[in-house]
Parts: sequence; structure tokens; C-alpha cells
Amino acid sequence: MGKVICAGLGPGDPDLMSLRSYRALQGASNVAYFRKKGRTGQARALVDGLLPDAVTEHAMEYPLTTEIHFSDPEYNRQLSAFYDEWADTLTEITQTKDVVVLCEGDPFMYGSFMHLYTRLQGRAEVEVIPGITGMSGCWTATGHPITWGDDVLTVAMATLPEDELAARAANTDALVVMKIGRNLPKLRRALETAGKLDQAWLVEHGTMPGQTVQKLTDVTGEVPYFSIVIIHGEGRRP
Amino acid sequence: MGKVICAGLGPGDPDLMSLRSYRALQGASNVAYFRKKGRTGQARALVDGLLPDAVTEHAMEYPLTTEIHFSDPEYNRQLSAFYDEWADTLTEITQTKDVVVLCEGDPFMYGSFMHLYTRLQGRAEVEVIPGITGMSGCWTATGHPITWGDDVLTVAMATLPEDELAARAANTDALVVMKIGRNLPKLRRALETAGKLDQAWLVEHGTMPGQTVQKLTDVTGEVPYFSIVIIHGEGRRP
Repeated sequence: MGKVICAGLGPGDPDLMSLRSYRALQGASNVAYFRKKGRTGQARALVDGLLPDAVTEHAMEYPLTTEIHFSDPEYNRQLSAFYDEWADTLTEITQTKDVVVLCEGDPFMYGSFMHLYTRLQGRAEVEVIPGITGMSGCWTATGHPITWGDDVLTVAMATLPEDELAARAANTDALVVMKIGRNLPKLRRALETAGKLDQAWLVEHGTMPGQTVQKLTDVTGEVPYFSIVIIHGEGRRP
Repeated sequence: MGKVICAGLGPGDPDLMSLRSYRALQGASNVAYFRKKGRTGQARALVDGLLPDAVTEHAMEYPLTTEIHFSDPEYNRQLSAFYDEWADTLTEITQTKDVVVLCEGDPFMYGSFMHLYTRLQGRAEVEVIPGITGMSGCWTATGHPITWGDDVLTVAMATLPEDELAARAANTDALVVMKIGRNLPKLRRALETAGKLDQAWLVEHGTMPGQTVQKLTDVTGEVPYFSIVIIHGEGRRP
């Protein structure tokens, strides 16, 4: 009997994956990874050159839900069926061998693997290897520590309503906002309302080729969904 | 000219350090690490067996401030002088070679190295290697994802006042509380006030030998300062 090994790969730079994830890749007979149809997939690209030649690859391609709003039950139904099918397939593979699921960042923090993880309970042994979060890679890239002393850190998604984003930004010491993309104008307004727009940084492609680090007030044009906005804490320091 | 390399070592299990930190250790001629007087130091213990035989070690021993409250200016003065002196020493070493500073967790998140980092600006080149946070190691150990969908995650220190802890716990989806130790009774009361005590987990020695994972309501007796309390988010999931 094999098991499912979810290998957290870290924020994007392959050198930032853990020794344990690296060894899992080196020993893999089967790997699986999420991607959009017609794309390489970020997780797969991250491990390029690190997999054994004889590895069997399973590309888990998301259903085409981009035209359906996530509040529509059809969105939920299609995604749920997709995760059900891949949980079946991974369980089947573990009847004879291990399968390594490649996951960017830290698998248990807003990761897609979590939807497989819940479905695999009681059916297959699962090992989860944590990873350096994308946000750690991004705040390190800014060159400023994120939290000091008794600072409170809030992590919020830019998909939240504007008034909630503004309240969260106002009521914290340090802030990380993820899932930016088309939510950027709303997030800007929220940070302005909170009086913190001038303190915000935007990191694109953190730790990867093409990384950019800018004050948010200097950003023009569109930004990737996976870019991250950061406001550093200013807490107690001797 | 050398540089200061701050190697994030992750949550405790040596296999969870990054490839980059591992290589920094393997190539180190000088390492420095914080510790309490008379103790090995967690960071030093974590790399046992991983340093070259000929390495020169610099134990940065905290001044004995345990009898002084951190609100006392004397506490601040002693700590500040301590960091000043070590920033001088590290700068001196970089005149001729690199020095690797060993840091548990992720250096830029509540890490002691940050106090050296600010003092080294403009004096020495500094490279910071992020690490898997202690909290990632702990929520992975619970076997439950920390955040789903649009969940808000709050990270707060148990050193905060009880009423603030209660408000933070009530006003978030997922919660991580660090710096527990003698603050546990206060934190319990705060979580009870927030109506969330039953959802809380306590992880001691996360990813290390002696790791324990318990519901907080099952915990009796004292717990380490570096144990972590976790409340998982329950957000949207297909």
C-alpha cells in the first residue's frame, strides 16, 4: 500500500523547498499537480528538472469555471465533481504505490490540495509536508520584517467586500492581502479609507524570475491574481 | 568582503529547512546563534550534525533580563546594547568572510534576528533566507487546514491584554496565538469569552521530538512559551 504525499514547494524559488519535499520529488514514481487547461501549471514549472526521468505525471486540470461566478451552485458542483474524481484516482494509485502531489506555498493555507485532503480521509494514507508560504517569500523580498513584539498580523483575501477590507486594514498592525488581480482598485480604496495606502507594498512573482517589489502607490496597470500586498508592523523593538 | 546570511531553519524538524539554508550551513566557516546563558539554544540544536567540522561558532547569549519587566527602560537598554554589540561583531567578521546566523522559523516574522538586521543596514550586506513558520508546522501537525476560501487569519501574541485577545478571537475566522507559556490561563478566559474555547488546539514542540497535539480543553498543567494555539477556519469549500 502506498500513500499520498502532498509536497509543499514554497513560494516559487525551487531552492526554497524543504529537504523533505526535495527528497519526495527525487523518489517519486507518480506525481500529480493542478493546472489550468492548456497551461504548464505553476507547481509543475517549479519542479522542472527535479523529477526522475521515469516519473508518471498526472495533470489535474481545473474544469472551465471562469465564466461562472463562485456563488452559482453550478460552479460548486463542477469543482466538487472534479475533486471527487481526482480523490478516486489518487486513492486508486495508492493501492500499489506512492503519489506525490505538488503544491505551491504551504498546502494547508488556502491550498487547493485541501479539497482532495478532506476527500481522501479514511481512504488513503496522506502525508502533508508544509512549505514556506508565498507571503513569507514576499515580505522577505521587501527587505522589511513583517511583525515585531506584540504586533497583530491579519491575513485577508482581496475578494472580501470593500468595507470589510477597510475595517481589517484599520484594525491590525501588520497586514497581508492575497488574491489581488482585478480586486486591486477595491483594495486601494479600502486601504485609503483605513489611512494606510501609503504604507502598502505590492510584490509580484515573489522569489521568482520577474519579481517586482513596489510601493502600492507607485503601481500602475493590472497585477497578477497571485501578487501580494503587504503592510509591515511597527511594534516594540529594543 | 563577506556578508551576513540569516538562514531561516523552519519549525524544528531539520528536514523542513530549505535547500538554500541547508547549503548555507554546509558551506559555513562562521555561524552565530542566539541562546540563553547555559543552554544549547534551539537553533543550534536544530543543526546538530549539519555543520562543517572546522566551523567557528559564535553563541549570542541574551543578557539576563528575566528579572526585569519589558516595560522597564533597563530591559530595553540591556537588550539594545546586546544587539548593538553583536551587530558590531558580525560586521567585523564580514570584513573577511561570510557568517551564517541560525534562525528558527521564518526570520522576518517575530524573529530576534530582525533586531540585528536593522542595525546592520548600511554596514554589511545581509541575505535573509525565509523559512517555514512555526505556525505552519503546528497547523500541519493538527491534520486540519488552517484557512479556506475567503477566511481571515489573525495571528496574535498571548502577551496581549485579555480583552484584546477575546476581541481578536471573536472577530476572525482562523486564529493563531503564539508566546503562550504563563499566558495560558488568560488566553483560555479570552477564548471562552469569544465562545471559541472548544474549537482551540494546542501544539507543543511542533514537528520536533515530543510533539503533542491536543484540544485546548484537554490540556492540563503548564505549557512551553513556544507552544502555539490554533483555531481552524471553516470557510467556503466545494
